Amino acid sequence: MRIVLDAMGGDRAPRSLVEGALLARTRCPAEIVLAGDESTLRPLFADLLKSRPEAAVSGGVSIVHAPEVVGMDEAGPAALRKKKASSLAVAMGLLAAGEADAVVSAGNSAAVVAHAKHHLGLVPGLRRPVLAVVIPTLRGNALLLDAGAHVEAKGIHLAQSAVLADAYLRLKDGLTRPRIALLNIGEEASKGPKVVRGAYGLLERTTLHFIGNVEAHQVLEGTTDAVVCDGFSGNNLLKFLEGVAEFLRRSAAIEPCLEPASGGSPSSNPWKEWAERMAARELGGAPLLGVLKPVVIAHGRSEAPSIANAVGEAFLSASSDLFRRMAEDCEQSRILSELKHQHAVYALERLKQTWRFGQKS
Amino acid sequence: MRIVLDAMGGDRAPRSLVEGALLARTRCPAEIVLAGDESTLRPLFADLLKSRPEAAVSGGVSIVHAPEVVGMDEAGPAALRKKKASSLAVAMGLLAAGEADAVVSAGNSAAVVAHAKHHLGLVPGLRRPVLAVVIPTLRGNALLLDAGAHVEAKGIHLAQSAVLADAYLRLKDGLTRPRIALLNIGEEASKGPKVVRGAYGLLERTTLHFIGNVEAHQVLEGTTDAVVCDGFSGNNLLKFLEGVAEFLRRSAAIEPCLEPASGGSPSSNPWKEWAERMAARELGGAPLLGVLKPVVIAHGRSEAPSIANAVGEAFLSASSDLFRRMAEDCEQSRILSELKHQHAVYALERLKQTWRFGQKS
Repeated sequence: MRIVLDAMGGDRAPRSLVEGALLARTRCPAEIVLAGDESTLRPLFADLLKSRPEAAVSGGVSIVHAPEVVGMDEAGPAALRKKKASSLAVAMGLLAAGEADAVVSAGNSAAVVAHAKHHLGLVPGLRRPVLAVVIPTLRGNALLLDAGAHVEAKGIHLAQSAVLADAYLRLKDGLTRPRIALLNIGEEASKGPKVVRGAYGLLERTTLHFIGNVEAHQVLEGTTDAVVCDGFSGNNLLKFLEGVAEFLRRSAAIEPCLEPASGGSPSSNPWKEWAERMAARELGGAPLLGVLKPVVIAHGRSEAPSIANAVGEAFLSASSDLFRRMAEDCEQSRILSELKHQHAVYALERLKQTWRFGQKS
Repeated sequence: MRIVLDAMGGDRAPRSLVEGALLARTRCPAEIVLAGDESTLRPLFADLLKSRPEAAVSGGVSIVHAPEVVGMDEAGPAALRKKKASSLAVAMGLLAAGEADAVVSAGNSAAVVAHAKHHLGLVPGLRRPVLAVVIPTLRGNALLLDAGAHVEAKGIHLAQSAVLADAYLRLKDGLTRPRIALLNIGEEASKGPKVVRGAYGLLERTTLHFIGNVEAHQVLEGTTDAVVCDGFSGNNLLKFLEGVAEFLRRSAAIEPCLEPASGGSPSSNPWKEWAERMAARELGGAPLLGVLKPVVIAHGRSEAPSIANAVGEAFLSASSDLFRRMAEDCEQSRILSELKHQHAVYALERLKQTWRFGQKS
């Protein structure tokens, strides 16, 4: 099993990626390939090896040269066109050619999304991939998507996110009928923005276990297994959660009561457990659901431990063949085709209404 | 000074409103008028007076009959048209006629907004009013708007919200040059949804102290005095904050470390102080900025103490003539006219681009 890291992507690249690779090797059997500028990576690698002699013994980390770098603020499609030899492009190319099993990047997520879509392709019938993040709740976890692959979404995009969430939770976590909800500002189908109301209408008509709308605070209560929203809302919610996690970590440093209880007595406070999990959560990566091969996006600010964890997640996805199984599942269930049909029916209805009343409905 | 309560609006109406009125009378010199179904209110009032004999002495609470009620899920404009004698319509009518100085409602906020706009009018040049909520931050408070008066917003609406926030913070809190920011998922002007980018372009060209974009977690850090966003985002953020506040309250009940430190030593943990203020914050109402007379909207789930606090805020606004002074300030500064001009220039530029390139820009 071979995992490629975009070694030049991220605020702390390439050091965090190289260190993360060495750390990952101590936990995970996959070979790691660092894609990036050779003249920078080789000395850095040699240098870090000195402080990690055990990694030198295990080997399994190699470097593939890539002379260009996609900037953190560069537009995805533009970078895709102009920088054919960026670390990101080279990494994706290896995965596409079957010379690697997964890609991990902490770089510009819009660029990662554009490159993944171009090099790897999407589940047939899917319009766009989405970034999914696991959020701890009072009763386990909830999947939040889109956490930022795109900014705005139409109703059909939200509905397709629900399909991906359902497949992911069934195939990865073994949930039989994952509960899927739309993030909204009220319970009724008539509430919220037009795109959410549209998605509600589409999802009501599928075989998914769609439980309706969920409000932001209810997400934490664990009333749903997946929360679907546009990337702007998802990214806002995620950043807000991270602000809260930061608060809890600082509180824990000063107030011992939020630290894990030692000794035998179980904690009787479910919120306290949530706080602990929240404080620990940032050490992970987010899978890009909907692409045909495994891509895990780590936070731009990731340090080596987060990179290593992202590699671990990529390894799990690749070794369980999760992405391919998801694509197969979507094709077999024909649910994306059903959605497409429903969406067309819905659009036709609205067109008829427009003709009938002579005004925009 | 006379404050009218929409006694039939809210999940716990009319009891919470009547009890809230009696509670408010013990703290605030204004007379209170309860608008609603007389046959329900009179016995309820008499009943509650028995448990609050001190309120019976101070007097100052009267009832005005209103036979209809706006439902919590009723569309605002429809209710306005059909239910001319609702408790909300009667309350607004009294305020509009100068027979009261402020309205407080815990009812259907879309209906309150529609009624306020219709009965009271808006600041000249303003397209829509917005709901503003005060959020505690590490360094004081931040005003969040729109917290839910409307669902979606165009760039011009966001820019106008900024104008209202600036006037409100200067006139109410005495800030000289309040910092105003747009809620966004990144710092750069090119980030985020189209409407936010449009608002950014407009706000850059005003005399407001516009500090650019702020990310959700930075709001808590106190880097800005006001955060501007659409109602969907604002309401999501607010509900999320309320979820966090709930967590903190439950933790405080079990973990003594979050309770205020007793004794002389000052707290060295700014996050702890934030947590305490967060836990206390729900007891208030949100002003509807942009209408010509004071309207305060309390949370639908408000109990008597929250209603009483909302009455207190309405009293402060009314006695300081805040809403009228805001309208005057906006007219004198001509900033809404400037925005209108900029917006027209901007729209013309985009139209020219469309003609030039033969495609939607």
